[in-house]
Amino acid sequence: MPVPLTKETEVDVLIIGAGPAGLMGAHALKRAGVNVRVIDQRPNQVAAGQADGVQPRTIEIFQSYGLADRLLREANHMHMAAFYNPSPNGGIECTGRAPNVSAPSARYPFEVTRHQGGIEAIFLDSMAEMGLQVDRPIIPSSIELSSDEAELKDPHSHPVKVVLKHLDVPEGKVDTEIVRAKFILGADGAHSWVRKSCGIAMDGEQTDFIWGVVDIIPDTDFPDIRNRCAIHSENGSCMIIPREGDLVRLYVQLSDTDAVDENGRVDKTKMGPNRLLDVARKTFHPYKIDAKNEFDWWTVYLIGQRVASKFSVSERVFIAGDACHTHSPKAGQGMNASMSDTHNIAWKLAHVLRGWADISLMKTYEFERRKYAQDLITFDKKFSALFSGKPRTEDNLDGVTHEQFLEAFQTSGLFSSGIGVHYHPSTIVNTEYQESARNLVIGQCVPSHIFVRAADATPFEIQDLLPADTRFKVLVFAGDVMDPAQLQRVRTLAEEVGGSEGFLKRFSKGGVEKVFDVLTIASGDKFKVITADIPAVFRSHWSKLFVDDEDLYNRSGGGGYEKYGIDTRGTIVVVRPDGYIGMVAPFDHHKAIDEYFASFMVA
Amino acid sequence: MPVPLTKETEVDVLIIGAGPAGLMGAHALKRAGVNVRVIDQRPNQVAAGQADGVQPRTIEIFQSYGLADRLLREANHMHMAAFYNPSPNGGIECTGRAPNVSAPSARYPFEVTRHQGGIEAIFLDSMAEMGLQVDRPIIPSSIELSSDEAELKDPHSHPVKVVLKHLDVPEGKVDTEIVRAKFILGADGAHSWVRKSCGIAMDGEQTDFIWGVVDIIPDTDFPDIRNRCAIHSENGSCMIIPREGDLVRLYVQLSDTDAVDENGRVDKTKMGPNRLLDVARKTFHPYKIDAKNEFDWWTVYLIGQRVASKFSVSERVFIAGDACHTHSPKAGQGMNASMSDTHNIAWKLAHVLRGWADISLMKTYEFERRKYAQDLITFDKKFSALFSGKPRTEDNLDGVTHEQFLEAFQTSGLFSSGIGVHYHPSTIVNTEYQESARNLVIGQCVPSHIFVRAADATPFEIQDLLPADTRFKVLVFAGDVMDPAQLQRVRTLAEEVGGSEGFLKRFSKGGVEKVFDVLTIASGDKFKVITADIPAVFRSHWSKLFVDDEDLYNRSGGGGYEKYGIDTRGTIVVVRPDGYIGMVAPFDHHKAIDEYFASFMVA
Repeated sequence: MPVPLTKETEVDVLIIGAGPAGLMGAHALKRAGVNVRVIDQRPNQVAAGQADGVQPRTIEIFQSYGLADRLLREANHMHMAAFYNPSPNGGIECTGRAPNVSAPSARYPFEVTRHQGGIEAIFLDSMAEMGLQVDRPIIPSSIELSSDEAELKDPHSHPVKVVLKHLDVPEGKVDTEIVRAKFILGADGAHSWVRKSCGIAMDGEQTDFIWGVVDIIPDTDFPDIRNRCAIHSENGSCMIIPREGDLVRLYVQLSDTDAVDENGRVDKTKMGPNRLLDVARKTFHPYKIDAKNEFDWWTVYLIGQRVASKFSVSERVFIAGDACHTHSPKAGQGMNASMSDTHNIAWKLAHVLRGWADISLMKTYEFERRKYAQDLITFDKKFSALFSGKPRTEDNLDGVTHEQFLEAFQTSGLFSSGIGVHYHPSTIVNTEYQESARNLVIGQCVPSHIFVRAADATPFEIQDLLPADTRFKVLVFAGDVMDPAQLQRVRTLAEEVGGSEGFLKRFSKGGVEKVFDVLTIASGDKFKVITADIPAVFRSHWSKLFVDDEDLYNRSGGGGYEKYGIDTRGTIVVVRPDGYIGMVAPFDHHKAIDEYFASFMVA
Repeated sequence: MPVPLTKETEVDVLIIGAGPAGLMGAHALKRAGVNVRVIDQRPNQVAAGQADGVQPRTIEIFQSYGLADRLLREANHMHMAAFYNPSPNGGIECTGRAPNVSAPSARYPFEVTRHQGGIEAIFLDSMAEMGLQVDRPIIPSSIELSSDEAELKDPHSHPVKVVLKHLDVPEGKVDTEIVRAKFILGADGAHSWVRKSCGIAMDGEQTDFIWGVVDIIPDTDFPDIRNRCAIHSENGSCMIIPREGDLVRLYVQLSDTDAVDENGRVDKTKMGPNRLLDVARKTFHPYKIDAKNEFDWWTVYLIGQRVASKFSVSERVFIAGDACHTHSPKAGQGMNASMSDTHNIAWKLAHVLRGWADISLMKTYEFERRKYAQDLITFDKKFSALFSGKPRTEDNLDGVTHEQFLEAFQTSGLFSSGIGVHYHPSTIVNTEYQESARNLVIGQCVPSHIFVRAADATPFEIQDLLPADTRFKVLVFAGDVMDPAQLQRVRTLAEEVGGSEGFLKRFSKGGVEKVFDVLTIASGDKFKVITADIPAVFRSHWSKLFVDDEDLYNRSGGGGYEKYGIDTRGTIVVVRPDGYIGMVAPFDHHKAIDEYFASFMVA
C-alpha cells in the first residue's frame, strides 16, 4: 500500500482560529486583496452564547468595513443602565438609572448585544461573498520559524512552517499538510496553541471571583429587565445584559462552595443553569424571576486577569484576542478588545506584503495593542472589584456605595466604549503639531461629525469618508478659500505636496490613489460653489470636496472646525487606514508629513 | 397530431405589467401572503434610463417595506437645486440655489435618483426571496368580467377571465393560458391594454411641449452639474438631474422642427443623443458640456396631461400607474405616483381577500388615487408651463422671472415631495375628531418623529413602528400616566376598548394581533419605568410602550405631543396599513372608532 504523501502549500497570512479576532483579521485582509487563509478546529461555527457585547467604537469599526448595518439590525441596542442596591425594607431597590455608555463623541453612543455566532456570521457571510471560507476542522501540530535574519527581513520570504492536521479526513487519506507562510496570526483563544508553542508567558493572576452566566427568556416582574443592570444585594451580585429578541443574559456571582473543587478549579458538575437561576433569585428578591425557555447556553468561570508578555515573535508570528489577554466580562470588553487587535494589524500586514511599508511597521502592533491590553486589565481590576464587592450597608460600612459604583461606571465610559482608546507616539503616531487640531487627539479615532459635500450639498458622516480600505486619508482643512490670501496658501501647498517631491508621489509605490485618499474640507457656505478654485490635487473627483456647514435642513453639520479645534490658516490631518489619527500638521510644516511617512513607508 | 390543450389556472390577484407600479403591488401582496401573480411582455427587466426620481414620501414607503436601505445606498441623493437665467453679459448665470425639496416634516427631506431598472431590481430581489418571480414574456389577449352581481360581491369568486399568450413557447407547444382571477391589476403603462380592453377613456390633452432626454457622463465646467438645475436661457430651457455614479440626465426643450413630423407626432428619426446635446449646448453657453460616455439611453416625447375617467371596473379590474395618468416629468413624479397607486390598493386587496373587510373597501382606491392624479395634472400644468416658458428679459417682459419660478418651486414642495398628499374623507378617512391631534392631519401620512421605548430607552422613528404589514396601528397617546386621574382614564379605556364589545375584538376575525398593532405612547420621563401601571391590552409585549422624551444623549426625540398637537387627556390615533392617518378620537369618544371600523370591516 503506498504511503500517503504530505500536502504542501504556501500562503501569505495564515490565521489560526476563526473566532471574532480571527474573523475580523481574515475579513480585513481578504478585503485588502491579501492572500489569506483561516483555519479552525471546530467543525461548525458557534450557535449560541459566548461573548455578546459590542461597544460603540467597535460598531464604528464594523461600519468602516461596511458591516454595521447588519449588526445594528440584528442586535439588541442597550441604551440604559439601572442600578439596584439593598433596600432598607429588605431585598433590593432601584437606586438610579443612567445612560449605559458615557461617550458623547461616539457616532453610536450605545452598546449592542448579539450572540457570538451572530457576530461571526456577519464576517463569514461577507468573506464568502469575497470567496473566502474558513478551513475546518483543522488543528496545527507544529510551528517552526526561520532564524535567518535576511529571510526574516525579506517581506517576500515564507519563513514560517506550520504543520496542520485535517480532522475530517477519512482513514488512510492524507490528513497532514505543511503550510509555508509569510505571517502567522494566532487568534486561537485563551488556551492559545500558537502562544504556547512560541513559549510566550501570560503575566498576571487568577482572581478569586467566580461567576456563572446563563441566557434566559425571563418571566419576571423586575422593572428593568430590558436594561443593563448592576444589582448589589446582601445575598450577592448580579448583572443583567438584555439580548436580541426576548433573551436576557444573567451574570451571577458565585461562592467557592457553589462551583469550585478542592483544588480551586471550576467544577461545572457542581453547577447548572437551574442552580444558577436559584442563586440569582436570592439576589433579585423581592422581584421574581423564572426562565420560559430551555437553556441553550450557560457557563461558570474564574476570572483571570493576564496579558501575554509579548504579542509577536520576530514580527512574523503574532497572537491576538484572548490569546494575549484575558479579563472579566463585566465591562463587556472581551470580543471588542479581540477584534480591535486584528483590525489594528490587518492594514499593517497589507502594506508590508505589498512592499509599500517597511516590515518594521509590524513592531507597532505589539506596541499599541499590548499597552492597550495592560490598560484594560488595570481598568478591569478596578471595575470588577467594585462589581464583585459587597454593597455598603449599616452592617458593612466598608462596602461599595451606589455613588462609588456609579462614578466608576461613568468615568470609565470613554475607555470602555473604546472611543477613548489612545495609541501612544511611535513611528505611526506623531504628536508634534497637535495644537493645529487641538481636539483631534493624535492616536485616537476621528470623532463623529457631519460635513456637507460641496458639489451637491449631500451631508456625510466623516467616518464614512474614512473606510477601512487600507488607504491613508489626507484631510486638507483648507480654511476659508473665499479669502484670496488663504486660497493662495492652498495653491502653494498643492504645488509642494502634489509635486514630484511631495509625500503623495514619493510614498505611493502603488499609485497615489491606491495609497492615499485626499479629501478637502473648506470652512464655508454650501450655497457657494467653490470647486473651480481648489487645486486639482485636492479634488481628484467632484466627490472629494466638502464644506463645514449645516445641511440644507439644519438637521446636522456645521461647526466642525471649532469642534475639532482646527487652525483655520490651514491644517493637514493624516488618518491611518484603521481610522486613528496618525499625524497633524499646519500647512507651513507639511514637510513634517514627509518625515512621518519616511519613517515607515518605502519611498 | 393532437391539438394542444389550453392550460387553465386560477389566481387571487393577477398583475399585468412589471414596471414600478406592478412590482410595488406584487411585492406588497406577496409580503401580505396573498396568492398573486405578475406577468410582463418584456423578456427581460429594464437595464437603463426611463423614470429615475424617487421623492421623499416614496422613500418612506420603501422603508415601510424594509427596502429603503438599499435604495438609499444605491441611489444618488439630490439635495440642492440651482437656477440659471439669462445673464446681462449673454449666456446664462446662476440666479440662486435652494433646497431641492421643501418638506420640513419629511423623514428623508431629499429626492434620490436611480435608473428604473435599479429601482425594479429592489422589488424583484425581495420578491425572489419570498418565492415570487415575474412570468415573462407573456401578453394578455382577452379579458372578460362576469356581470353576475352575486358573483361580483362574493370575495371568494373568480369573476375575471383573462387569456394569456406565452411568447417564448416553441412552435407546436401550448402557448395559451386561461387565468381565472379574483382581481386584476392593470399596471401596463401609458398604452395600457387593460385600460383599452375595458374601454376606459383618458381625459385631458396633449401639450405642445416637446422634450428630449439623454443620460451622459459629463465633461463640463458648469458649476452645478451635481445639483438639480433649472436653466432658462434665451436659447431654450434645460433641466439637469444628477444620477448615480458620475451619470447626469439632461432634459432638453425642443422645438417642433427638431423632433415632430408633419402630423404633429414625435419623430425619433429626426433626433438623436448627439443632436440633443447640441441643443443643450446652446442653453449652457458660456459653459461647455460634452459627454464622456457612449449614450446608453435617450428619448424624445410630447407631454400629455391626462387622467383615466375611471380606475376600476366593478371593483374587480383596476388600473394603476401610467395606465391611469400621464404627465410631464418635470417635477419627477411619474414613478412615484405609480408606486403610490399600488401601495394604496395592496392592503385593501389583502383585507378583502382575507374576508376581513367588505369588498366595498375597494371603492376607496379610485376615490383616493383619481383625486390625487387630478391634483397632479393641475400641479403639472402650472409647473411645466413655467418650466417650458421663455425667461423674462428686456425683450420679453411677459416671460417667467426667476422669482416666479422659485416661488412655484418652493410652494409646490409639500405636494411634489408626496408628503402633502391628502386623502379626502371617506369610509377610511374620518376627520370628525381632528382637533384631538391638531397636527396629525387625517388623510395624510404620519410625520417623522422619534419616541423612546419605555423598557430600554431605545429611540425609535415612529414610521418604523408603522410598517406596511397590513395591520391597522392603534396609537394610544396615553398622556401623563404618573397622574393617578389620567392613569384611571387609561384603565377605563382599556376595559372598554379591550373588552368583548371593543373594536379590537369585534373587527379582528384573524386574531387581534393579526389585524391590529396597539402601541402606547405616554408623555413622560424615560428614567421612570411605568410599564407595570399600563393595562395589559395597551402593552401586549414589552416593546409596545413608548415615552415622548428625548433619547439619552439629547440627540433626538422629545416634544412629540406638542408637535402632533395631541390632546393630553388621551387620544387614540388609527393609522391605516399604508401609513396614512385614518381616524383620531379622544378617549371619551372611542366609540367613534368602532363606527369607523364598522363602516368597512367585517364584524
